[in-house]
Amino acid sequence: MSSSDVNVKLSRLLLLAHKFNNFYLNGFQKGDIRPFLVEGQQVGLIKPDVIKQLNKYPEVFCIRDCEYTKQGIVELNPAFRDYSERTEKLDKVLRELRSKGLFSALQGWREEYYEVKAEHKSLLKMDRSATPLFGVRKYGVDINGYVRHPTHGLCIWLQQRSNTKETWPGKWDNMVGGGLSVGYGIKETAEKEAAEEASIPGDLVKNLVSAGCVSFFFESEQGLFPNTEYVFDLELPLDFVPHNADGEVQAFELLPANECIERVFTADFKTTSCPVVIDFLIRHGFITPENEFWFTQLVELLHVPLQSLYTYKQRLEESRKHHQQQQQTELILINKSLENGHAINKTITKTN
Amino acid sequence: MSSSDVNVKLSRLLLLAHKFNNFYLNGFQKGDIRPFLVEGQQVGLIKPDVIKQLNKYPEVFCIRDCEYTKQGIVELNPAFRDYSERTEKLDKVLRELRSKGLFSALQGWREEYYEVKAEHKSLLKMDRSATPLFGVRKYGVDINGYVRHPTHGLCIWLQQRSNTKETWPGKWDNMVGGGLSVGYGIKETAEKEAAEEASIPGDLVKNLVSAGCVSFFFESEQGLFPNTEYVFDLELPLDFVPHNADGEVQAFELLPANECIERVFTADFKTTSCPVVIDFLIRHGFITPENEFWFTQLVELLHVPLQSLYTYKQRLEESRKHHQQQQQTELILINKSLENGHAINKTITKTN
Repeated sequence: MSSSDVNVKLSRLLLLAHKFNNFYLNGFQKGDIRPFLVEGQQVGLIKPDVIKQLNKYPEVFCIRDCEYTKQGIVELNPAFRDYSERTEKLDKVLRELRSKGLFSALQGWREEYYEVKAEHKSLLKMDRSATPLFGVRKYGVDINGYVRHPTHGLCIWLQQRSNTKETWPGKWDNMVGGGLSVGYGIKETAEKEAAEEASIPGDLVKNLVSAGCVSFFFESEQGLFPNTEYVFDLELPLDFVPHNADGEVQAFELLPANECIERVFTADFKTTSCPVVIDFLIRHGFITPENEFWFTQLVELLHVPLQSLYTYKQRLEESRKHHQQQQQTELILINKSLENGHAINKTITKTN
Repeated sequence: MSSSDVNVKLSRLLLLAHKFNNFYLNGFQKGDIRPFLVEGQQVGLIKPDVIKQLNKYPEVFCIRDCEYTKQGIVELNPAFRDYSERTEKLDKVLRELRSKGLFSALQGWREEYYEVKAEHKSLLKMDRSATPLFGVRKYGVDINGYVRHPTHGLCIWLQQRSNTKETWPGKWDNMVGGGLSVGYGIKETAEKEAAEEASIPGDLVKNLVSAGCVSFFFESEQGLFPNTEYVFDLELPLDFVPHNADGEVQAFELLPANECIERVFTADFKTTSCPVVIDFLIRHGFITPENEFWFTQLVELLHVPLQSLYTYKQRLEESRKHHQQQQQTELILINKSLENGHAINKTITKTN
């Protein structure tokens, strides 16, 4: 079989996976992005347009090249003593940037905080609207509400977001979804959102099945979205109809799987919710290696290795170790030279 | 919450995911691995111990540094005209290496070929036993046979491999599994293996549900295993008992999910089959973000980005483009100097 026999045109699904991974596939390689460090831990990634503004606050951000890794970094002033001081100083800068109207992301200011953590430890909190500017990893939950219809087969409930929502107003979305909030567990958040967004009663919510997670790295004019969504499936009775309780949803619609995937391809669907639908349709045998030429590539792009992009601390430790080893070798060589009585024209270097 | 409050000890599941990704996490970074190229396409990755032997066949392998990427590469002699000649020349070397007893992988010689492809085009075939020496990507199918038991809950059928199998003899494994063979589709392979390995009748096999794929990169003394397994789920009736038809299985056992996961942790379980079981238990709500501290890391390690490790051709094209752009810039500068009447002491470089 020659390559000309094969239709290697990218499929619509793979193109969509490229779209919601535009930063993973294209942005990250540009090399002009800098790790954002808090207490020596990498909690984010910052683009040049944001760095340019942060440069104006040298008392808050230390923007420099790391002496070991040689990489450019943005560090929150390490002199800040604790969680409260870090939060307060950062918040002041963000409110000022917001008032200047420089970043569209901050126009969606929420007065709702997001916990910034590293290795499961909270380091500070920032307004939810600001996380895309700092490329902070975001975690959310999504519920795939579905029905096994006697004639239409697998059908999926979608919600249409309210026109008044700060993000993606009016777009189609998964039946239920939301960001993780401080003090709530993952399943707890899913249950809370199921009640608030779709009025799903307790006797149905108990059937929630944890089904994995998807990870992707999207970039829009709002900033960076290195997102992980915890995914739950919920099979619903044929006669159940969700209705909204918190004003954040304007409509619900039940679609057969093939119509659902067409909806996902339209500009009316929230880009960052597409991975959850695609993952659902793969797990339930609707998208298969037989009908999707780029199946393995598609699955890989639903689970991009975000953890490998936030590893400044490990790289620093390796560089330091390497540096120390070099210095030790140098010291040994110098000592040998001295022992041998050779004159050397070099200062003896001490290891740290 | 301070970090000391959190038990950050790696879980048994994450340690297992590190084990079946030992090459992805540790081996690949060492930098002594070389791309294996056939017709300009990267089809594999080769370790130094293998390169040392291939060096003895300069008429078959061209081992050199790429002029553009500066990376060390192993190229199958580009003078070989076609699929047949490439297959024949490589086969001769492999049989000689086998007779020398240098590689344990070749002691499991199968007289069964594996198609080596790039961009869905077959470039050559080699004995199945040799693929780990060349780090060729392998594809297989696996069926999770399961039962919803009224008292034991989710139960999973496992097979114990025959003691006479070339690979992983006597180890516990998924109910049904096998490599893709030439001329068979993915679902077709699953159906064929279901009949041969577990005598699953047609009226049950029709319930097979495609459920995704897992990708990982394992290394053993046999060589490299950059594997992708297409995963199928098959719910079975309570009273069905699989029995083997092809002599490759010595036993089947039905285990409740919690006993199944314990079996997976033992040395009696085939390492490269663990990802399929873990993926199944995640998709069916048995391993959850609530009971697995390293849940997102675990999911990422079931879907490592193998496609990003076989990209020599793209990197070469980028290097060439970069090189050409540099030359063009140089040419423009030289022409400008000439126009300005400056004497230059440089040969004019032509772009390709």
